[in-house]
Amino acid sequence: MLTVNAYAAPSATDPLVPTTIERRDLGPHDVLIEIRYAGICHSDIHTVRGDWGAIQYPQVVGHEIVGVVAEIGSEVTLHQLGDRVGVGCMVNSCRECENCLSGDENYCLNGNTGTYASRDLDGTITQGGYSTHIVVVEDFVLKVPESIPYEAAAPLLCAGITTYSPLAHWNAGPGTRVAVIGMGGLGHMAVQIAHAMGADVTVLSQSLSKQDDGLRLGADHCFATSDPATFTELRNHFDLIINTVSAVIDMDAYLRLLRLNGTFVSVGAPAEPLPVKVFSLFGNRRSFAGSGIGSIRETQEMLDFCAEHGIASEVEVIPASEINAAYERVLASDVRYRFVIDVDTLR
Amino acid sequence: MLTVNAYAAPSATDPLVPTTIERRDLGPHDVLIEIRYAGICHSDIHTVRGDWGAIQYPQVVGHEIVGVVAEIGSEVTLHQLGDRVGVGCMVNSCRECENCLSGDENYCLNGNTGTYASRDLDGTITQGGYSTHIVVVEDFVLKVPESIPYEAAAPLLCAGITTYSPLAHWNAGPGTRVAVIGMGGLGHMAVQIAHAMGADVTVLSQSLSKQDDGLRLGADHCFATSDPATFTELRNHFDLIINTVSAVIDMDAYLRLLRLNGTFVSVGAPAEPLPVKVFSLFGNRRSFAGSGIGSIRETQEMLDFCAEHGIASEVEVIPASEINAAYERVLASDVRYRFVIDVDTLR
Repeated sequence: MLTVNAYAAPSATDPLVPTTIERRDLGPHDVLIEIRYAGICHSDIHTVRGDWGAIQYPQVVGHEIVGVVAEIGSEVTLHQLGDRVGVGCMVNSCRECENCLSGDENYCLNGNTGTYASRDLDGTITQGGYSTHIVVVEDFVLKVPESIPYEAAAPLLCAGITTYSPLAHWNAGPGTRVAVIGMGGLGHMAVQIAHAMGADVTVLSQSLSKQDDGLRLGADHCFATSDPATFTELRNHFDLIINTVSAVIDMDAYLRLLRLNGTFVSVGAPAEPLPVKVFSLFGNRRSFAGSGIGSIRETQEMLDFCAEHGIASEVEVIPASEINAAYERVLASDVRYRFVIDVDTLR
Repeated sequence: MLTVNAYAAPSATDPLVPTTIERRDLGPHDVLIEIRYAGICHSDIHTVRGDWGAIQYPQVVGHEIVGVVAEIGSEVTLHQLGDRVGVGCMVNSCRECENCLSGDENYCLNGNTGTYASRDLDGTITQGGYSTHIVVVEDFVLKVPESIPYEAAAPLLCAGITTYSPLAHWNAGPGTRVAVIGMGGLGHMAVQIAHAMGADVTVLSQSLSKQDDGLRLGADHCFATSDPATFTELRNHFDLIINTVSAVIDMDAYLRLLRLNGTFVSVGAPAEPLPVKVFSLFGNRRSFAGSGIGSIRETQEMLDFCAEHGIASEVEVIPASEINAAYERVLASDVRYRFVIDVDTLR
């Protein structure tokens, strides 16, 4: 066992505090990663506060992890000491359901093993990336291209893949019109990726306060959803809408923005059901879909794509001591566009 | 003008009555069809009763029309005197929006001209197929293959194409598992078509009362949705679910029956919005879509496909005098599987 420094939530209501946790001894296929940076995802906050169900405490979260390979198990072939690597939202899966067998382990029918707050194969609860080290089985460890700075790469492991996967699956590219709802951690990645794929990109945001950033990141157009004219002007317009916000929205208003065979994909989700008028789906043969992160194969593809196109996350690096303050700012949407913890401040 | 016999609704609440209506003089591209049979679609009832909005009266409905070409306009090239032809849910479209230009006139952005209760190009309200004759522009007239009896062909023009189009669009075929919700006019066509396409077909019906028919028409399995075990046993199972019922259903329960990349397509719709939990869409990257009839090109393809595979509608032929009684039986789901009016009884 390796005892390592970490920042943990002691309960659903108390602030996170410094602590130590144990990492398992390396199995033959395990990789020990010395973590350099860990992104702060809104999901971290939902999880520690019990918004998505009760969890055990203390709990370390963080699933946007980058670092260096510090040790490898006896049979590891995919990674070497010193490699720049990353870990995203999952650290294992059942490996035997039809989705795992087809390489879609993010849709594991037995539930993949989440990077935190998930029951691991040894029965323990997984602990995430707000920590100096993590042990992960080699085939759930990604290679982080040299050209992407560590801190800017961390958010790619969740925000990047969560938006890349639906953009790739629904064929964003030259000749397609893509809308991105919300310019936060996920939205600012979706804009860059969709632009790099060659799509015509529109940001749909409550206001135009982030218009300059949107255009700088590759958007071709920005519209305010607080203006009713937006919904008239853009009617029957988009091939693909990526919804990154988890608030309850007027689905019918957004569905009407889709042109023939268009798809509205949610990657964020409110806990409440969304009312959908089926007549809004009839017109233009529209679809309303969901997408959950991405597979390991797709995540590597996304990292390589980002490197090739010079894409990364825009981040604000903070020491571990500022995690609680950062949480409040995330909840107030006061971050452009992702907080990343400098894990050296935990050593 | 040609004055022809018809059966019309005099108001939203009175029974249909025999009457006469006028058909326009033939334009150069028009075809005069002597109608032989007209199917009774649930939409006919919704329309005359004002369920989908107020309409003008008297109104003749019926959009499952088959007959013989009795006269052609001076420039008609697609049809000849004596041809066996059909007319479905639309008789024209704008011909200039991007959907019409791509051959998807059923999704005409300016609203196609419905076969009844729709404003025609000359400003009059279209009158449907419960009538001895109809005048339709040649490219909205379909060819009915010789091998399909007239009366069994009529329902193909709406029930057939409405189910064929999504089955074809979402690639029902060998290796795919298709569920059909509801065994009515649409459902009994969906089962036959999906089976002929090579899919593994499951009927999901309230009870097993139509199980024998389902299996005879080509279903491989039948399950009762009144049995909660159905939803456990079939979890993550289907590639495509075609929902032909317009009642409010528990969307989340049905969405969970979809396997990876599966799609739930509604071709029937309740007026009320359906609540959808986005988390039900995340799993297996599921989609909830709508589909509205089919294009003229697809409708011809469907008719030819049905002829090739020996598929047709199972019908109960009635004289026009029984239309009102048939409406009550349709509302009570007491028909296997489509009423078709023998239009000779109107002459």
